[in-house]
Amino acid sequence: MNEKITSRSEDFAKWYTDVVKAAHLADYSSVKGCVILEPNGYAIWEKMQSVLDDMFKKTGHKNVSMPVFIPESLLRKEGELINGFAPEVAWITEGGNNKLEERLAFRPTSETLFSDYYAQKVKTYRDLPLLYNQWCNVVRWEKETRPFLRGREFLWQEGHTVHATQEEAERETNKMLETYKEFFEKYLAIPPLTGRKTEKEKFAGAEYTLTIEALTQNGVCLQSGTSHYFGQKFSKAYDIKFINKNNEYEYCYQTSWGVSTRMIGALIMAHSDDRGLVLPPKIAPTQVIIVPIKSEEKIFSIAEHIKTSLEEKGVSVSIDYSDKSPGYKFAEAEVNGIPIRIEIGLRDIVNNEVTLVRRDTLEKQVIKLNDVVNVTTQTLDKIQENLFNKAEENVKNRTYDAKNLKDVEEIMNNNPGFVNAYWCGSEDCELKMKEIKGTKSRCILESKDYEEEKCVVCGKKAKHKVVWGIQY
Amino acid sequence: MNEKITSRSEDFAKWYTDVVKAAHLADYSSVKGCVILEPNGYAIWEKMQSVLDDMFKKTGHKNVSMPVFIPESLLRKEGELINGFAPEVAWITEGGNNKLEERLAFRPTSETLFSDYYAQKVKTYRDLPLLYNQWCNVVRWEKETRPFLRGREFLWQEGHTVHATQEEAERETNKMLETYKEFFEKYLAIPPLTGRKTEKEKFAGAEYTLTIEALTQNGVCLQSGTSHYFGQKFSKAYDIKFINKNNEYEYCYQTSWGVSTRMIGALIMAHSDDRGLVLPPKIAPTQVIIVPIKSEEKIFSIAEHIKTSLEEKGVSVSIDYSDKSPGYKFAEAEVNGIPIRIEIGLRDIVNNEVTLVRRDTLEKQVIKLNDVVNVTTQTLDKIQENLFNKAEENVKNRTYDAKNLKDVEEIMNNNPGFVNAYWCGSEDCELKMKEIKGTKSRCILESKDYEEEKCVVCGKKAKHKVVWGIQY
Repeated sequence: MNEKITSRSEDFAKWYTDVVKAAHLADYSSVKGCVILEPNGYAIWEKMQSVLDDMFKKTGHKNVSMPVFIPESLLRKEGELINGFAPEVAWITEGGNNKLEERLAFRPTSETLFSDYYAQKVKTYRDLPLLYNQWCNVVRWEKETRPFLRGREFLWQEGHTVHATQEEAERETNKMLETYKEFFEKYLAIPPLTGRKTEKEKFAGAEYTLTIEALTQNGVCLQSGTSHYFGQKFSKAYDIKFINKNNEYEYCYQTSWGVSTRMIGALIMAHSDDRGLVLPPKIAPTQVIIVPIKSEEKIFSIAEHIKTSLEEKGVSVSIDYSDKSPGYKFAEAEVNGIPIRIEIGLRDIVNNEVTLVRRDTLEKQVIKLNDVVNVTTQTLDKIQENLFNKAEENVKNRTYDAKNLKDVEEIMNNNPGFVNAYWCGSEDCELKMKEIKGTKSRCILESKDYEEEKCVVCGKKAKHKVVWGIQY
Repeated sequence: MNEKITSRSEDFAKWYTDVVKAAHLADYSSVKGCVILEPNGYAIWEKMQSVLDDMFKKTGHKNVSMPVFIPESLLRKEGELINGFAPEVAWITEGGNNKLEERLAFRPTSETLFSDYYAQKVKTYRDLPLLYNQWCNVVRWEKETRPFLRGREFLWQEGHTVHATQEEAERETNKMLETYKEFFEKYLAIPPLTGRKTEKEKFAGAEYTLTIEALTQNGVCLQSGTSHYFGQKFSKAYDIKFINKNNEYEYCYQTSWGVSTRMIGALIMAHSDDRGLVLPPKIAPTQVIIVPIKSEEKIFSIAEHIKTSLEEKGVSVSIDYSDKSPGYKFAEAEVNGIPIRIEIGLRDIVNNEVTLVRRDTLEKQVIKLNDVVNVTTQTLDKIQENLFNKAEENVKNRTYDAKNLKDVEEIMNNNPGFVNAYWCGSEDCELKMKEIKGTKSRCILESKDYEEEKCVVCGKKAKHKVVWGIQY
């Protein structure tokens, strides 16, 4: 608790890493570019996994585990993918004291392995679709890293599906984006932006990429999940054929989709404050912490009683029995982002009361013992709602329409956010935008031959309505 | 379902891999020495994880995630560990198109990383104990591999704890062995042998290693989990010091413990038969499969009703709605090891009956619709019990006392199993035993200066009562 947290207004980037450390979410390791997920951080990831895994299974997906290694020749079969990932691959070249005959890539993503497997498994349309997912670690050799946001190793899930028709595969691509959106809104209390990536920003090897983008409190954009439609690109490269209903050979249609521990970064940047972490109740590993003000048996027994009653309602509760001072315990509960703190002192007991403190607003409320369960569960719902509303308000305040480059510059330099602007579709214009503090297209909202609208950069006829923003 | 399963009596090793493939537990990949865990296999692992993770958390352990890489210099700090693992390490030598300045090991186990982390975190006795665990993949560059039993990459959990006293650390070492034992008995229906490894067989770097050993139906021994006491070996190598209650610096006491996907191999070899997989209900991802004999709405609605009623009792149920023939569905349910199959035909409906088939005994039983829930839940318990009893019977029948080398030879050549025999403690005698079909000490049951007992190999005075067996 000695760790001081820099304020957001002073230095947002420093504030972020201070919160990560002070809330014991992650720590730096002796391995360059890799962090240690500490218990508080890993518990959030477990909660995310558990909710998403249920959602995936309810939509018919099954978990598997593919090897972590990809032989170089297998990785190179699909040209665009390897071109996109080659600069970021880590290579295993020695095993058991011997130089390997062929280099093995540490998976940066597993389209190649799934495709190789599907090529063996899929024979006829009766075998389709195969809807598989895996939870695993991947490695991308990044130069600059930051906890949760960018690391050489990170944890994620990658869904890989194979279908008999284009229509079904495209429906899957959309469905998984919608699944992520629902998760962000309902659990993370983050209202995300969703849409299609431009050609330049799409996944290497995809026909197109759908994205889910979160906005931080200071208006920076975080790509937080993607869902790709591959068409037949991989099935042609890896020879995944099936006999269709007309008894003809046809190449399959594929998708992949993923979210990672980066979501923890998005979560922190969306809700936390200068006192530390703020967690939406639905994703908080511990939703309520009870702090006995004195080490008295009477207080402990009431604390245990409240804990049991809340647990019966599905609330996760812990009691701080440590011998630290009450002030220290309060500060610790705050820094760790526990949504509700219940304080019980000796006087409270006499009055049949406890004090309930909301982490999001820091409001204190004295309530009768009999009301604890009701008020607590209602307050958890209110906190969840309030955090979503605040995040939505931030998005609303930071969503702009820009008519020209000067508009974009002014917005990005002062109060950045999601900037709607028309675009002609040329990469040159995209690169021009990037000169403004690294502004990139976040996603395409609509594409057509516009009559009136002009590209915000070159002034030529617009083809796309695009949301732009400063890339994290 | 075209896959033929070799009988156990014909070729046990071939039977094993046939079951693995036919039940779709795992498949070979294009990556030498690495398998793909398919949905049926991975679902068993998920079930194992979920039960064990609850047990770990109830005993105060927390999950974390350490980097997958270990810099060579960090790995080499503890001499015994690196000497033990060096021949099996896979090395990352290139990242992002550049040769790395220092080789990185793909973790074969993570004592070094945890120790490095604990050295930063632990300051005083108040910080202790730290009871951490991680679920992850590890790599050991094995020459010969077999699905689940030995692979270049496998999934496991590794617990790493650090304590203020030797006594507490030793208690932890024992407690985790007992936790594994309970899991094997209650969930896997496997009665394991437990005890201490000899110096030669212990973990590289441990003061001592406790082991849990499973016996296969054909009498081969499978080391299925280990719990290590490290004393201060790692804390001295990695400088993990704390200020104790007397205000003096002291080195910490450490443990580690792990089980892996190898348990799936032990499970198969303990219970399965010539028709395929047999799963104990408590670890079966699907406990009951309902097979409608005809595609009739009336049958489906009864099937759904039974499913809902069973699910309310916590039973996991699936209904086979596919358009395959009933015979095919029965065979598939058998090969996949689903504990109970419920068949519903048109005639059954008229009689208000269904047919219930046990996977373990293949017994059929016609029961009234009203009794389905009761009989099914009772039968699940009976199957769990029966599998344990059969496995226990196998261990009993294959547990021997040997007085001399000739005894050992005769047992190992005819009906191998757990062989109790006294031993002087010399490695020479251990190596002599190994000449008998690879017989190794499984564990030490008791150590003392025996008056009467002689080493079964050299005839000198015995110091240990040891269980020997053929190493898988």
